[in-house]
Amino acid sequence: MTQGQTEAFLAALGRLYPPGSMHTDPAQLAAYECDGLTVFRARPLAVVLPTAREQVEATVRLCRQFGVPFVARGSGTSLSGGSVPVPGGIVIALNRMNRILRLDPGDRLAVVEPGVVNLQISRAAAPYGLYYAPDPSSQVICTIGGNVSFNSGGAHCLKYGMTANHVLGMKVVLATGETVEVGGTSLDVAGPDLPGLFTGAEGQFGVVVEVTVRLLPRPEAVRTVLAAYPRLDQAGDAVSAVVAAGLLPAAMEIMDRLAIEAAEAAVGAGYPRDAGAVLIVELDGPTDEVEADFRRLMEVIEASGPTAIRLARDEAERLRLWKGRKSAFSAVGHISLGYLVQDGVVPRTRLGEALARIEALAARHGLRVANVFHAGDGNLHPLILFDDRSPETVERAEELAAAIIEACIELGGSITGEHGVGLEKRRFLPRMFDPATLDLMRRIRRTFDPDQLANPGKVFPDEPGPAVATAPAAATGTTPAARPAAAGHPLPDPARPGVLAGPGGGAP
Amino acid sequence: MTQGQTEAFLAALGRLYPPGSMHTDPAQLAAYECDGLTVFRARPLAVVLPTAREQVEATVRLCRQFGVPFVARGSGTSLSGGSVPVPGGIVIALNRMNRILRLDPGDRLAVVEPGVVNLQISRAAAPYGLYYAPDPSSQVICTIGGNVSFNSGGAHCLKYGMTANHVLGMKVVLATGETVEVGGTSLDVAGPDLPGLFTGAEGQFGVVVEVTVRLLPRPEAVRTVLAAYPRLDQAGDAVSAVVAAGLLPAAMEIMDRLAIEAAEAAVGAGYPRDAGAVLIVELDGPTDEVEADFRRLMEVIEASGPTAIRLARDEAERLRLWKGRKSAFSAVGHISLGYLVQDGVVPRTRLGEALARIEALAARHGLRVANVFHAGDGNLHPLILFDDRSPETVERAEELAAAIIEACIELGGSITGEHGVGLEKRRFLPRMFDPATLDLMRRIRRTFDPDQLANPGKVFPDEPGPAVATAPAAATGTTPAARPAAAGHPLPDPARPGVLAGPGGGAP
Repeated sequence: MTQGQTEAFLAALGRLYPPGSMHTDPAQLAAYECDGLTVFRARPLAVVLPTAREQVEATVRLCRQFGVPFVARGSGTSLSGGSVPVPGGIVIALNRMNRILRLDPGDRLAVVEPGVVNLQISRAAAPYGLYYAPDPSSQVICTIGGNVSFNSGGAHCLKYGMTANHVLGMKVVLATGETVEVGGTSLDVAGPDLPGLFTGAEGQFGVVVEVTVRLLPRPEAVRTVLAAYPRLDQAGDAVSAVVAAGLLPAAMEIMDRLAIEAAEAAVGAGYPRDAGAVLIVELDGPTDEVEADFRRLMEVIEASGPTAIRLARDEAERLRLWKGRKSAFSAVGHISLGYLVQDGVVPRTRLGEALARIEALAARHGLRVANVFHAGDGNLHPLILFDDRSPETVERAEELAAAIIEACIELGGSITGEHGVGLEKRRFLPRMFDPATLDLMRRIRRTFDPDQLANPGKVFPDEPGPAVATAPAAATGTTPAARPAAAGHPLPDPARPGVLAGPGGGAP
Repeated sequence: MTQGQTEAFLAALGRLYPPGSMHTDPAQLAAYECDGLTVFRARPLAVVLPTAREQVEATVRLCRQFGVPFVARGSGTSLSGGSVPVPGGIVIALNRMNRILRLDPGDRLAVVEPGVVNLQISRAAAPYGLYYAPDPSSQVICTIGGNVSFNSGGAHCLKYGMTANHVLGMKVVLATGETVEVGGTSLDVAGPDLPGLFTGAEGQFGVVVEVTVRLLPRPEAVRTVLAAYPRLDQAGDAVSAVVAAGLLPAAMEIMDRLAIEAAEAAVGAGYPRDAGAVLIVELDGPTDEVEADFRRLMEVIEASGPTAIRLARDEAERLRLWKGRKSAFSAVGHISLGYLVQDGVVPRTRLGEALARIEALAARHGLRVANVFHAGDGNLHPLILFDDRSPETVERAEELAAAIIEACIELGGSITGEHGVGLEKRRFLPRMFDPATLDLMRRIRRTFDPDQLANPGKVFPDEPGPAVATAPAAATGTTPAARPAAAGHPLPDPARPGVLAGPGGGAP
């Protein structure tokens, strides 16, 4: 656009937004420059804060008229650069569309606006004994619109599935300005799974303006066990034994020695400091069922060679067991100046192999890697530690992150479990999909967004669209406490120990 | 096409298929004229029986070159007219692509060709203690390709979900002749849910040539209870009470008085003949868990006012309890000359209301309706009984079927739970989706199939494409035993009492 066109666009945009709901001032725009990954940064032309669907429609139509790209976002906790602005484009921040429109305990569903914070749904449903199951670690701050766009997971997704398994329907303002309503109020829907198509689309089909989610009955009972092992592979074997015993825990999480060290330094979770790995297993469900499963679980755990076993006797103890795990990402900031969170998937049966390869790769790159992972579904979150004062080290960390993803692909896994492709992983997409399938994905995208204005430059490695700037040497998780809440890593929420607070795509 | 073009097309097609793998003889084509619904009939130009993906690709490319529509099908058990041929088009029958390509007990998955029969997967997985969960009543004959295309359900989908929840990936020959590979070997896949988009697409995007499905550990224990009640609403209340108690049975099925009468006349299942309704509840899982849940279930059932309770003490008794339910569709042939199976969904909380409306509508139309339904998820299967010798009665039955679907829509439900839209329900599609959403669905379809050659005339009410002939007064389920197995209703399989055999989309 010429300067004149840009001014005309901004003037027209300004007519859609009352004072205080549109930002163009650089100081205000700064808070929207990056997502939770912080590696990629870009400054938008403007940020708008709509409060109604009609405003979103008008905004998207205006963008189309002027050919201006747009990125919709919530709290910006995504971890793949997916909600980073497009230079020359605008950001549609949905945080003010944060109403719970309907909560139906009988049919166990909630209809919410995209800016509703994940945990707010469970809080609103609590009086009816219901809750919303997907629980990204950032759930106190990440929004449901971001969860939908990245198909967010969480520790309890082993039993309950990802966001896609809990979204019944949605309203979406397509990039063409039309609003469509897909899905409904039941999982039995006529025709192809359109809600599934929008879930995980990383904002490239349009702007989600309403979501209908399933609510589940709050489990009557919960049992949480922590087991410590001398070596990481023993914790992995214990996971295999739990699965082989026919148990389906709500969560099975593993942390290695370095992750334990970080968690102890950060939050003093009380994990055994000499352990090579800890495994957290949680069962939930009706009391009788949980107690029956718990007896079986303990037999399996006791036979797996642990050096220590801790049981949560009450909710306070349970929260303490989870505290280290839930704060692991930010905790590594206490033992390293910079860090990168990777997100890859391997078949569960190849977990041991994957961990051995990560260890070898880390040694070859001369860097430390802390492993924290959803062991039940093979979703790894290696945390690569480095000194962010040295550009050479930053580059080496990025190489290691890429090598780990290559290893996941070679082992028959996926380049992302829950953080999405975003900017970070688009170059790996051709490793996951053959040219015909990639072409099909592009064609589907153009069906929704013929002009490629919705979050362009993400996901697809070679999609035409504005390039996105990378900060020179900003691949860091340093001094998270000094970052503004809307642009840094998830922060430990002082009001809710053990729960991550921080800005909202929602992972892991 | 001109006569000459048709001849050129058939000659070129013949060069792709060795003798015995292409039919053009009217007597052979007759077996492919209709699906399990039997209302809609059409004769194809030819039927081809490929054995390899390359043949499917060449066939689809040839169809595109000549502008010939094609319908892919398996055993043809679909119940909405979805696999009925398009006049002037060909049928690609996938029954000979029936190999299990890989069975991986460690990663719990199977890679199969589309013509593999549903139950064959579980049989192949049985030595490893695994099985494939979705269980349409037609599972001894319906094929996995049809299950995928209609997102088939089954009695146990209450706990385990529909086909879409068990498909990890697939290879599809698009209507353009390209082959794409979507999904993978894990539920964590990068980007939008493309396998979900193909699951339920009713063959309109292309031909599924390979499917990767999840396998589950066979439940260690199963408990099956049948409770009889004086009235249907009492059975419905019992279902609500089971749900309120926090139990998640594998299946909860209800049959009303007329359905019981039919089942008794057909298979002598031994249900209490004086009951107004029977409820079958099945629990499965680890032994301890099932026993704990069973005690709780029995408390709920005993408090729900049943006149009789029957427990299955062994597998033989369990199969007997299921026998009446599983054969219910064909059983009504024993008490009525003709019948129509309807398939609608209502929110579970409005089941009672829906049943009362069906009763009133049946009375108004002067017809009897037998109700058989998946009570746990609100999926109704009213069986409309009529005298097929009278065209007027046939028409009235179709009107009643339509009125029942209207009622489901008004109650906030869906026009299909698992049988698909096909030909039967395409006129209701605009009642489910607004014009913008319908237009989006059409655009997505054209992305995969720009010339609209893949199963045209189905799903969309006004899609250009060859019209499909309706038999003058053939809306019947009469004398099923006299029908060729590939073109009638699911038949009771004499070799497997209590299990439906019959031709393969797979429902309910």
